[in-house]
Amino acid sequence: MPVDPIALTADLIRCPSVTPVEGGALQLLDRLLSDAGFETWRVDRADTPNLYARWGARGANKSFGFNGHTDVVPVGDAAAWTVDPFGGEIRDGILYGRGATDMKSGVAAFAAAAIDFVQDTPPDGAIILAITGDEEGASTDGTIALLDWMQSNGEAMTACIVGEPTCQDVMGEMIKVGRRGSLTSHFTVTGKQGHSAYPHRANNPLPAMARLMDRLASHEMDAGSDHFDPSTLAVVTIDTGNPATNVIPAICKASANVRFNDLYTSHTVIAWMQGEVDAVAAEFRVQIDIDTRVSGESFVTPPGELSDLISAAVLAETGITPELSTTGGTSDARFVKNHCPVVEVGLVGKTMHQVDECVPVEQITQLKAIYARILRDYFT
Amino acid sequence: MPVDPIALTADLIRCPSVTPVEGGALQLLDRLLSDAGFETWRVDRADTPNLYARWGARGANKSFGFNGHTDVVPVGDAAAWTVDPFGGEIRDGILYGRGATDMKSGVAAFAAAAIDFVQDTPPDGAIILAITGDEEGASTDGTIALLDWMQSNGEAMTACIVGEPTCQDVMGEMIKVGRRGSLTSHFTVTGKQGHSAYPHRANNPLPAMARLMDRLASHEMDAGSDHFDPSTLAVVTIDTGNPATNVIPAICKASANVRFNDLYTSHTVIAWMQGEVDAVAAEFRVQIDIDTRVSGESFVTPPGELSDLISAAVLAETGITPELSTTGGTSDARFVKNHCPVVEVGLVGKTMHQVDECVPVEQITQLKAIYARILRDYFT
Repeated sequence: MPVDPIALTADLIRCPSVTPVEGGALQLLDRLLSDAGFETWRVDRADTPNLYARWGARGANKSFGFNGHTDVVPVGDAAAWTVDPFGGEIRDGILYGRGATDMKSGVAAFAAAAIDFVQDTPPDGAIILAITGDEEGASTDGTIALLDWMQSNGEAMTACIVGEPTCQDVMGEMIKVGRRGSLTSHFTVTGKQGHSAYPHRANNPLPAMARLMDRLASHEMDAGSDHFDPSTLAVVTIDTGNPATNVIPAICKASANVRFNDLYTSHTVIAWMQGEVDAVAAEFRVQIDIDTRVSGESFVTPPGELSDLISAAVLAETGITPELSTTGGTSDARFVKNHCPVVEVGLVGKTMHQVDECVPVEQITQLKAIYARILRDYFT
Repeated sequence: MPVDPIALTADLIRCPSVTPVEGGALQLLDRLLSDAGFETWRVDRADTPNLYARWGARGANKSFGFNGHTDVVPVGDAAAWTVDPFGGEIRDGILYGRGATDMKSGVAAFAAAAIDFVQDTPPDGAIILAITGDEEGASTDGTIALLDWMQSNGEAMTACIVGEPTCQDVMGEMIKVGRRGSLTSHFTVTGKQGHSAYPHRANNPLPAMARLMDRLASHEMDAGSDHFDPSTLAVVTIDTGNPATNVIPAICKASANVRFNDLYTSHTVIAWMQGEVDAVAAEFRVQIDIDTRVSGESFVTPPGELSDLISAAVLAETGITPELSTTGGTSDARFVKNHCPVVEVGLVGKTMHQVDECVPVEQITQLKAIYARILRDYFT
């Protein structure tokens, strides 16, 4: 009997797996996959729960992988939800709950497709599911830990799909063949404290910070590239915390998040910002420190065999030829791309991270059908 | 035995009277003045502690007043201090601590001078001390409350000295016959929250705030006037409080403090700022609200009898003829000037509001001598 991906999504939603809590979600999948003949391993690292499952032989010439996560972001304002965020309730063909789109439906769809496939038409190769419980958090011991473990244990994928939502409005309209890079820089401007009435005796860090953030935010980084949208910089916070209006503070802090395309690396982004910092520090005679955390470099899996196969499957199941896009935030594809060709294909992500996150159940059915067709086509 | 103004200053520093906390400072003065034959009243209003003390008859033809405050600004970065900010420690003839210059030394000097004077040569008139615990804060229930209470109770001063620090580098170089006006404006920029990866779908308030603060801070308001220094604007805080680097916030707040001379009124300052706000709001298509609190308009007590008497006393005690200035921040003289002629004379304020605020103890002794001479000259 085929696995129902809608019921499986609802069951997963009922596991309250807010990062870093496992919440029973990986246990549920572990049981389901084991019962279907998969070998499974819990690959937990530093309190992060991860699940690895393989059907077929280790190191098979064709080893098709799926990657996803069962953890979800917090519910936010719980009172604003019109349903129980962990209830998995269906109303008028819409399944509600935290993780409904991001991405318990994706995990349920590829698990259901994989189980049906190996039971109905056992392939000459392997099917691998690498599922983490930490994609929404630090991501340091999630998919990275799974890939590290795979390398140490002779496990390999020859191609991989990440099941994150990839469509904005219409099912099938978009798959993702790469991502912009992402980094966050934290700026600290240090001047000299003093009395507001005597600004010339103090050295106010705030005008320098205002100028720096204005320069960074108003700079057009580029106009986009062949595969990518323009790079963007968002100033996300400026903070001083000075409650006294008669005191000029000594320190001001700010943070900016940069999403950069393949015209940059994290190094060239940082070099540009450092130039702006140096210019402003010299003009305002203040000290400006910059501390940068790189979440990921930009990458693209060049259009080819894998994307063609996936596009054909999406077209066959939805009637739409998907755009090959590199838009959006980061995903664990940035780790998988170091291992094997990777493409992301999933359903409509409109309500992800929002109150009343939800998904039309027919999208889950369609997504399972897409994954199933990809598996058939890949192994024939 | 004469009162030691250095020990008294140190005792006052040991009272941690950060606005609006009384900290024991007014209690200490109350006891001291009562013991010396002053009548005293606690004139607290709306949780603000104030002390009124009079020696001699109510409504005397000659009623010389001193005004000052015992509250102090916060210590700021406590770790940056090389001494206990509330220790009252003397090192190499320098007394350290929050309030050492602004203005526990001034209060100690006039209290000591007044007590010695009434005990040594009881004058034909009255000596009044009007001391508040809220000059560094809102100032709404401090010296104003004392003046209101005086009016209601038939209390009056015929001349008044405010004991704030008035010298920049050298003792005796400056007294103050007026002050610039002061106002603080609070700005709120409202945009639209969103994901850092999709800035075009959000409307980030931070670039608009950075531009606005840059425009305000870099504008030269004027070059000064006959009695006044140039007007100044200090951005004192910019705050967002957004901990999530993948979220563009909806709101950013900032405050700026303006000290304006007689080329402006608070109305013309506000009109200028509103023009900048409108320009930035239009360019960035955000909402910018501005909420302004006027602390005082600019004013000047024309040079005359009182300033002549004070200048002569300063010259006699320091060998320097003081400049009649209107520089600096606001002080409670802006309230007293509506009651009687008022001049400010105090010590060197170089370290006020800074880390390691301090005063050479000899300045405290000199200041007491100046106040004592002013009292002698006023009553003969």
